[in-house]
Amino acid sequence: MFRHLADGLISMATIHDLQTPALLLDPQALDANIAAMALALPGERLRPHVKAHKCTAIAARQRAAGHSRFCCATIREMEGMAAAGLGEDLLLANEVLDASRLGALDARVTVAVDSEETINAAVRGGVGEVLIDVNVGLPRCGCPPARAGALADAARRKGLGVRGVMGYEGHAVGVAARAEREQACSESMALLMKAHAEVGGELISAGGTGTYDCNTWASEIQAGSYVLMDTAYAALALPFAQAFWVLATVISLGDGFAVADCGLKALGMDHGNPTIEGARIWFCSDEHITFAPEKPVAIGDHIRVLPAHVDPTVAYHESFHLVAGDQVIDTWPVDLRGW
Amino acid sequence: MFRHLADGLISMATIHDLQTPALLLDPQALDANIAAMALALPGERLRPHVKAHKCTAIAARQRAAGHSRFCCATIREMEGMAAAGLGEDLLLANEVLDASRLGALDARVTVAVDSEETINAAVRGGVGEVLIDVNVGLPRCGCPPARAGALADAARRKGLGVRGVMGYEGHAVGVAARAEREQACSESMALLMKAHAEVGGELISAGGTGTYDCNTWASEIQAGSYVLMDTAYAALALPFAQAFWVLATVISLGDGFAVADCGLKALGMDHGNPTIEGARIWFCSDEHITFAPEKPVAIGDHIRVLPAHVDPTVAYHESFHLVAGDQVIDTWPVDLRGW
Repeated sequence: MFRHLADGLISMATIHDLQTPALLLDPQALDANIAAMALALPGERLRPHVKAHKCTAIAARQRAAGHSRFCCATIREMEGMAAAGLGEDLLLANEVLDASRLGALDARVTVAVDSEETINAAVRGGVGEVLIDVNVGLPRCGCPPARAGALADAARRKGLGVRGVMGYEGHAVGVAARAEREQACSESMALLMKAHAEVGGELISAGGTGTYDCNTWASEIQAGSYVLMDTAYAALALPFAQAFWVLATVISLGDGFAVADCGLKALGMDHGNPTIEGARIWFCSDEHITFAPEKPVAIGDHIRVLPAHVDPTVAYHESFHLVAGDQVIDTWPVDLRGW
Repeated sequence: MFRHLADGLISMATIHDLQTPALLLDPQALDANIAAMALALPGERLRPHVKAHKCTAIAARQRAAGHSRFCCATIREMEGMAAAGLGEDLLLANEVLDASRLGALDARVTVAVDSEETINAAVRGGVGEVLIDVNVGLPRCGCPPARAGALADAARRKGLGVRGVMGYEGHAVGVAARAEREQACSESMALLMKAHAEVGGELISAGGTGTYDCNTWASEIQAGSYVLMDTAYAALALPFAQAFWVLATVISLGDGFAVADCGLKALGMDHGNPTIEGARIWFCSDEHITFAPEKPVAIGDHIRVLPAHVDPTVAYHESFHLVAGDQVIDTWPVDLRGW
């Protein structure tokens, strides 16, 4: 990234040229995370979930690491992936009642179904393939395991290809104690395997960043957060490094506190406050974070704010700025936002 | 809003044509809120804050109600308001270290300053007018009251016009008990008036939706949330009605719960879970809300999700859909997002 100077010269842009708050990405950490996961779960053993990064440039990096099948949470994500030429095998791991935009895609499209209504929506929308979504313990989408076989039969009768089952152990992926996490995962997958025995098909799709190495039942793992990480996942001691943060500028100093320009509209807050190394967070407002730094900071200083939850943080931002030290070497749009 | 049918006819669009989650706006409630506030604080007594709605079409409605001066929280909001022809008198009620984009605007621009550094930034950026931002009890931006006079002198020495003071009693606006809210506001404004005596200028800018009728010291009130409201402000029993909500579709039913497609990426979560009338919220995930409805709901039903905090909710969405019953009568872009 270059900026044009008044005299016609160009110079490399730095983080000091960015309008804050700005999402920064460490491409070395990103590539290391992608490589570590591709080693553990090569090729089709991983179906990277794009919902965490919402960025086709990052997805292309995952594709280059050998993963050709992707997972999405929204129709907009499916459309963006197809438009970016990453539509070899796209799974919408979510239920929809209007699948017409999916049916119109130039891509291999599979959609999760857990009811007669969602099966009918797939047929109406012109989607040819489905996974039977099974509730494996998280009270969210998914049919009861005992109903999966009947739903698969119904889908096949209506001309849909049933590629297998999906069941997300979302109540397990964030459990801090590894033994308990493994136990919760194991119990969930017992339910999913039972459903799969009734449904058939080549795919058993499950898992996430927190269970990527203990979910040995699934044929493919739907991990997404591992590429960027956040402070919640960092607590699990996984072999993935924090690869992104929000750059903020110190704009004001008070008595025992400082204020930077990164607030509620730049951070997912459902997992609580973000973290600033060497500082205690007091509170966040719409466009501010008030914090007590251990060492003095000055007005104009740039600081790193580490979000507690990657997904809803990224969804607020228009782009990732790739940095090497203070140099901004590229900018990638967060091009899969919205619905 | 019309949609084109296959046979060439057009029909009025309804909420059932929208991709959910979608931000809906009740224009009657919006206009009633704007009218009620304009009656209480006519013309320049109100400086509407655009940060809650981030929508120039709503700002134009506030302008039509007699308010020609506006308040912004970000540079992008200032740019968007100027571009929309609403730049008669724009205040950036926030500190910036690079004011060059502000100096380039075709608008009357005033910026808040609370330090030598932010005064210098205004000068460097070509901004001609400032307000001295005073800390009146909320540990965020603002200089100590005793320093306001010296900062005003410094600003004037550097050629800036000092229009007065600003001091946001953000710790008071959300206090539920009215007497305590008034007391906190009164104490804050005593500090601000003291600072104003040293600073001079015609503007004493303060307040918010929660103190719009008890802050009788400020020359202008910076209220924004009143146009849309949220469940947190609803608890204060103010004469403003909820004018927006997130439309969601029930996509799955479980044993004692239902799931709709409105999650963490469609809701500001810092004030806690949203509300669904006639239902108990269990939890929100990235793209889902799990809730226990009192009366049965069906897959495909549309429900209203009422956010707890308006500002970070709106910032996730691309547009407001204006509705009359189930009819979608217009769509307004949320065109002031980002920084």
